[in-house]
Amino acid sequence: MLCRKACNYNLINYLKIATQKPYSVIASVLENATVGEDTEVKGWVKNLRVQKHLIFADVSDGSCAQKLQIIIPKELKTDALTCGSSVHIRGKLSKSPRGQLELLAENIKVLGACVVLDGYPFNPRTTHPPEYIRQYIHLRSRTNYVSSILRVRNSLTRHIHDFYASKKYLNVHTPILTSNDCEGAGEMFKVQPECQDTVKAMMQEGKNEDTLYFGSKTYLSVSGQLHLEAICRGMGNVYTLGPTFRAENARSRLHLSEFYMLEAELAFCYSLEQLQNHIEELLKYLFVETRNTNEADLSVIDKENCKEPSWLRQKFVTLTYDEAQDILKKKKVASTEKGINKEQELALVDYCNGTPIFIVSWPKDLKSFYMKECQSDNSKVEALDLLAPITGEIVGGSLREDDYDRLKLKLPSEKLDWYLELRKFGNIPTGGYGLGLERLLQTMCGITNIKDTLPFPRWPHNCSM
Amino acid sequence: MLCRKACNYNLINYLKIATQKPYSVIASVLENATVGEDTEVKGWVKNLRVQKHLIFADVSDGSCAQKLQIIIPKELKTDALTCGSSVHIRGKLSKSPRGQLELLAENIKVLGACVVLDGYPFNPRTTHPPEYIRQYIHLRSRTNYVSSILRVRNSLTRHIHDFYASKKYLNVHTPILTSNDCEGAGEMFKVQPECQDTVKAMMQEGKNEDTLYFGSKTYLSVSGQLHLEAICRGMGNVYTLGPTFRAENARSRLHLSEFYMLEAELAFCYSLEQLQNHIEELLKYLFVETRNTNEADLSVIDKENCKEPSWLRQKFVTLTYDEAQDILKKKKVASTEKGINKEQELALVDYCNGTPIFIVSWPKDLKSFYMKECQSDNSKVEALDLLAPITGEIVGGSLREDDYDRLKLKLPSEKLDWYLELRKFGNIPTGGYGLGLERLLQTMCGITNIKDTLPFPRWPHNCSM
Repeated sequence: MLCRKACNYNLINYLKIATQKPYSVIASVLENATVGEDTEVKGWVKNLRVQKHLIFADVSDGSCAQKLQIIIPKELKTDALTCGSSVHIRGKLSKSPRGQLELLAENIKVLGACVVLDGYPFNPRTTHPPEYIRQYIHLRSRTNYVSSILRVRNSLTRHIHDFYASKKYLNVHTPILTSNDCEGAGEMFKVQPECQDTVKAMMQEGKNEDTLYFGSKTYLSVSGQLHLEAICRGMGNVYTLGPTFRAENARSRLHLSEFYMLEAELAFCYSLEQLQNHIEELLKYLFVETRNTNEADLSVIDKENCKEPSWLRQKFVTLTYDEAQDILKKKKVASTEKGINKEQELALVDYCNGTPIFIVSWPKDLKSFYMKECQSDNSKVEALDLLAPITGEIVGGSLREDDYDRLKLKLPSEKLDWYLELRKFGNIPTGGYGLGLERLLQTMCGITNIKDTLPFPRWPHNCSM
Repeated sequence: MLCRKACNYNLINYLKIATQKPYSVIASVLENATVGEDTEVKGWVKNLRVQKHLIFADVSDGSCAQKLQIIIPKELKTDALTCGSSVHIRGKLSKSPRGQLELLAENIKVLGACVVLDGYPFNPRTTHPPEYIRQYIHLRSRTNYVSSILRVRNSLTRHIHDFYASKKYLNVHTPILTSNDCEGAGEMFKVQPECQDTVKAMMQEGKNEDTLYFGSKTYLSVSGQLHLEAICRGMGNVYTLGPTFRAENARSRLHLSEFYMLEAELAFCYSLEQLQNHIEELLKYLFVETRNTNEADLSVIDKENCKEPSWLRQKFVTLTYDEAQDILKKKKVASTEKGINKEQELALVDYCNGTPIFIVSWPKDLKSFYMKECQSDNSKVEALDLLAPITGEIVGGSLREDDYDRLKLKLPSEKLDWYLELRKFGNIPTGGYGLGLERLLQTMCGITNIKDTLPFPRWPHNCSM
């Protein structure tokens, strides 16, 4: 076994196409920090300081929050070398008197000029507010704020996959297009072919534009849970991370029409506590790992928020729904409506000094048909919401009804007969949850508006590009 | 630095919620193979052989292709213990006389029965053809064939992320919803809110159902390339892996309405050769790594195909479009239409003994507006298609037009002014490509029909679940 692996390892080396590395990314230059080495970097000038004989340029190539300082002899300066221009620099690595790695430029080529007066929206040496930056979606990855968020998002995604891989969970690509319409059809987007030739060619009697392509009305997925449950009952622990959609007319700092959801389904899950422990481990892992890999980015995004949260070394709080309502009454944020609204969620988190809170034992009529009833009180279900600072609800989950007959009585539509049939053959108890990736980023980085957590936000009246 | 990392490492250990592992997944049991250890596994019975005093059960939990053999004393047998049932087994690990790891059951509990006569479509000890299995989408992950494919897909996805992470590429979540309609609007799905209350509330003068929600017609993405180019011009090398859509009325063994596409954009990319080398390295890496991690699965999927392809140790072939046409004429598979059709693609791969072929220097009118013209012949563009066995075209890519003025002349729509403006400030030369994940799986595993490469295939008249 070892021999075969070693052999394949050699194959990988052998396969590497023998090309001279054309340049080094700055993250690698800073990691290796080999003083005296001839080095080439390519990137964008973020800052320029002109002194008598020398010019100091901070260059970034997007690979890390840190910039590489370039020391440029004045004779290499051209008019095109300005903030925002793209450059190709050859030189020697050196250390500044303060011990900072820098590149002594021997040759510098401006690849693309950047004339601020020609309409470039970001002025050098200016920190623009996120609302201003958001107006220039196509250019905003050139700002420190947004590029740091995108690097954190990249790392967070990677840590998520690492977490599940270490537990041997299967990554399942659940579909975007679905004919399921059980979970509040009102919030869904429907999908049709655009081309009228296709419509004409496929039209049959008894069909309309909504149903002609797939044979039934088709929507964009609001959750991959039911699909995950199908795979979980054949292959055990599973998860999915991908886009999800809501057609709500909501424009708050917490809502998007398209967002990423992380969903997992735990096989052989018998108790809500098992699910809670798993979710708590996941969140703490992601916070610690992301702080390890992206400390500098977190500090760019929000200097205040980037300290280690105190709850990392504490157990999350658990409250029943009824206990939470009692606290809200005492704190006078009770509401006439059922459930827990956003203001109340944040009040509860505040009450617990910012420690995340599991709200468990929810009234049955507030939750979905597939949730398992509590054994001790069948007016309640084995469901949880996890509340966190900044966003409130960040995770929702439950044990799933695993009894065929009980589920049959609660099934909202014949279209879900397939979901019922999953319980008929070799059934197992499962539980699972969904976590909003953008809201996690808000909590983790201190990002007030969800529209800054992803590269191309979509919300009502906004789908440019 | 080291100190901080060590400290955080301890934090991670500290954070692990102290819960007894309730059971071991079979992949871990087989990896560790600690003979004599008390072990618990949970999974599904795949095979049962009843002998005089003992029963031999092969149990799978989805974590690997291998089954764990369970030795069950006859007195532990119950009627519910059949193929397809889910079980919880406690026992001691042992080695069979042949050296195979097995579990001597001391306690066995059937969690969910499986009565084949009650409508379970998969008979024990029967290998069903893929077309048959495909009729039971919700149950098919319970078959060896489909579960092996899903495990390969899981590993392949992981290797893809590893490849780009090792090169410090940024993983970008490009949007599904887009108002861009440049790349053949006829093939697109359009998107509208379903709920009539939302429609009424959002309707304004001058708008219709197509435009009221986002303010402009909105489609499902056919490619994330243009979005990647925006991020690439702020942050360097980028890639995306996610769902993509085509509303074609195509039902071939190579087409889906929803499929996964891997797209990457290389910053500072000056030549097609640079792009070709990168793609060749990627593909060889993925083939080698997947064979390392999923040898047993590949053998379950197609015993014939799972040998190491001879081209792994060869350089890919490169042909210009004109050279390819000459070969097709000689082989008498020329066509009256322009371009290279599927039959011709496969004939070319056959001509090169199954080695993948880059077709380069394409006639301009066969390719997209954003491709860079060849310097030596401006009727041609710096584009490539990569042809592979079983599927034909598997990758398409090009250098992008990086000259602002030339691109302005070719821009198909004012809606793409943002795309043009990317070239205006600090521009860089880039090139990129898209690779169909499902077609890669077909080539890699020898899967004839693309509908078996993903858990929930969607094609015309088929969007169940």
